[in-house]
Amino acid sequence: MKIVVDAMGGDYAPGAIVGGVVKAVNELGVGVVLIGVEDEIKAELNKHSFPSDKISIVHAPEVIGMDEPATVSIRKKRHSSITAGINLLKSDGHDAFISAGNTGAVVAASTIHLGMMQGVERPGIGLVIPTLNRFAFLIDVGANPDPKPKHLLQSGQMASVYTREVLGIPNPRVGLLNIGEEATKGSDFTKETYALMSEKIPNFIGNIEPNEIFSGKCDCIICDGFVGNVVIKIAEGLMESAGTLLRREIKKSPIALLGAFLMKARLNHIKRYADYSEYGGAPLLGVNGIVMISHGRSSAKAIKNAIRAAQREIEHDIIGTMEKEIGG
Amino acid sequence: MKIVVDAMGGDYAPGAIVGGVVKAVNELGVGVVLIGVEDEIKAELNKHSFPSDKISIVHAPEVIGMDEPATVSIRKKRHSSITAGINLLKSDGHDAFISAGNTGAVVAASTIHLGMMQGVERPGIGLVIPTLNRFAFLIDVGANPDPKPKHLLQSGQMASVYTREVLGIPNPRVGLLNIGEEATKGSDFTKETYALMSEKIPNFIGNIEPNEIFSGKCDCIICDGFVGNVVIKIAEGLMESAGTLLRREIKKSPIALLGAFLMKARLNHIKRYADYSEYGGAPLLGVNGIVMISHGRSSAKAIKNAIRAAQREIEHDIIGTMEKEIGG
Repeated sequence: MKIVVDAMGGDYAPGAIVGGVVKAVNELGVGVVLIGVEDEIKAELNKHSFPSDKISIVHAPEVIGMDEPATVSIRKKRHSSITAGINLLKSDGHDAFISAGNTGAVVAASTIHLGMMQGVERPGIGLVIPTLNRFAFLIDVGANPDPKPKHLLQSGQMASVYTREVLGIPNPRVGLLNIGEEATKGSDFTKETYALMSEKIPNFIGNIEPNEIFSGKCDCIICDGFVGNVVIKIAEGLMESAGTLLRREIKKSPIALLGAFLMKARLNHIKRYADYSEYGGAPLLGVNGIVMISHGRSSAKAIKNAIRAAQREIEHDIIGTMEKEIGG
Repeated sequence: MKIVVDAMGGDYAPGAIVGGVVKAVNELGVGVVLIGVEDEIKAELNKHSFPSDKISIVHAPEVIGMDEPATVSIRKKRHSSITAGINLLKSDGHDAFISAGNTGAVVAASTIHLGMMQGVERPGIGLVIPTLNRFAFLIDVGANPDPKPKHLLQSGQMASVYTREVLGIPNPRVGLLNIGEEATKGSDFTKETYALMSEKIPNFIGNIEPNEIFSGKCDCIICDGFVGNVVIKIAEGLMESAGTLLRREIKKSPIALLGAFLMKARLNHIKRYADYSEYGGAPLLGVNGIVMISHGRSSAKAIKNAIRAAQREIEHDIIGTMEKEIGG
């Protein structure tokens, strides 16, 4: 098993990336190809010890910035770690690609160079989100802001297989994110999608309202890439603002400050619970290859966990399994 | 000034509604017409004291349930408090209508019976949301899930006038809710809307990402009714789930429990800060009349505050002012 990891992607690259890769080869026994600027990767690797046959380097001189326009940068920077990494994945003996870099560029390069898997027309980014029960799988959180209803059907089918095979939930319940419970509620788009999903997805449980996402009522939550991106960014922004507000209030009172100190252990427990780095990566589903997109702020731990998630996808032959079930 | 209030709408009707109306006439000096089942209203009014010339009752025997399909119930129940209340607003001497009842029914009855104001083709529900700075005005949170770009332009124009006149923010900044900062980001719909708004709205500041909603960067945030509804329901669901998680964790440790006790005063302060009942109602903009939709869980305080907000709209001749500026 050999996983290609973009050494240059993310806010803390290449340090955090290389650190995560070293953890992964030591703890999980996988082989990794680090792709990026060779000198920089070597300098980071020198800080660690690891079995030398487990990590190799492929030089890619160009780097796509986090905010560069995706399609332009893919066309112009053919020797970027993202484009070269995806092309490496296409060659024999490489099983997955992971990047914490420019999400749009990873989606574009994967779609162009890997093509789509059988039975799926558009890519979708899935994300494991914590719920009061356990977790749920939300797709699409940003790959395709203008899908057709059939693309959401395909996302639902992929999510169902992924959640069962990789996340280990038998018979996952699939729901459509919508602003009302009944089939007649929502936009023209969600009504049409509802009809399609209720016909074609056996474990479809109907509409899921946004306030129920975190309650654990549903295992796979399906939406278009615009709405899914809004969901995760609202959640992120709200938790940040609530934290700021809380700190601002606590500072006003020494008693509250003491209270916060006493609560610290439990608050940290919640923080860990809601920490994206525990899962580490968001699978890009639909393309013909295993691609994992990590958060731009990924730590070494997040990268290690993304590698573990990719490892699970490889072990379950996720693309073959999805193709077989969607085709059938 | 006479405000028509739906006595039968909301989870705590008619008790909380009548309680809020009594508070309003005593504290704000407005006159109110309570519309609904006369006997029930009288029974509630008997519990309070108030200047008897300030509150009158109009009997409407039918009640539209919170979950009834909107358009059907409007057609079938012509003598419901919502339909009769909107028709009362059309008659001379009535200045606003407030309901905590079925939102879809209020939107449908208002659109059908009041018609649209000049220069606006579709209604939008605005909502004042707390931010780290002060507050922002988000529109549309659910009236129109399938708008065209020109409808969002009109929402932006209305929001700008409303925020300045009624909420007292001079030169409010208007932003388009989108999943990227640049004009080229987002869906086909948001790109087209961006072009229109940047041409026609002088104080347009561009795209606002969902994680920035609560930061206070923008005064008026414009989106379609589907996305706006997702935003408020995600926020509601996330805060509820976070609260459940927090209580669950705190109970595990007596020390954390003591900490929470010490923090209580500041936590309550935050709760008040984020409490929708402080503002009380969401204006339905675009229809040719002042209509305020209150939360289904409205308390007496929320109803009083909704009446105060309607009073401000009346004092600022909000519809005349919006028509003049949008037409110009």
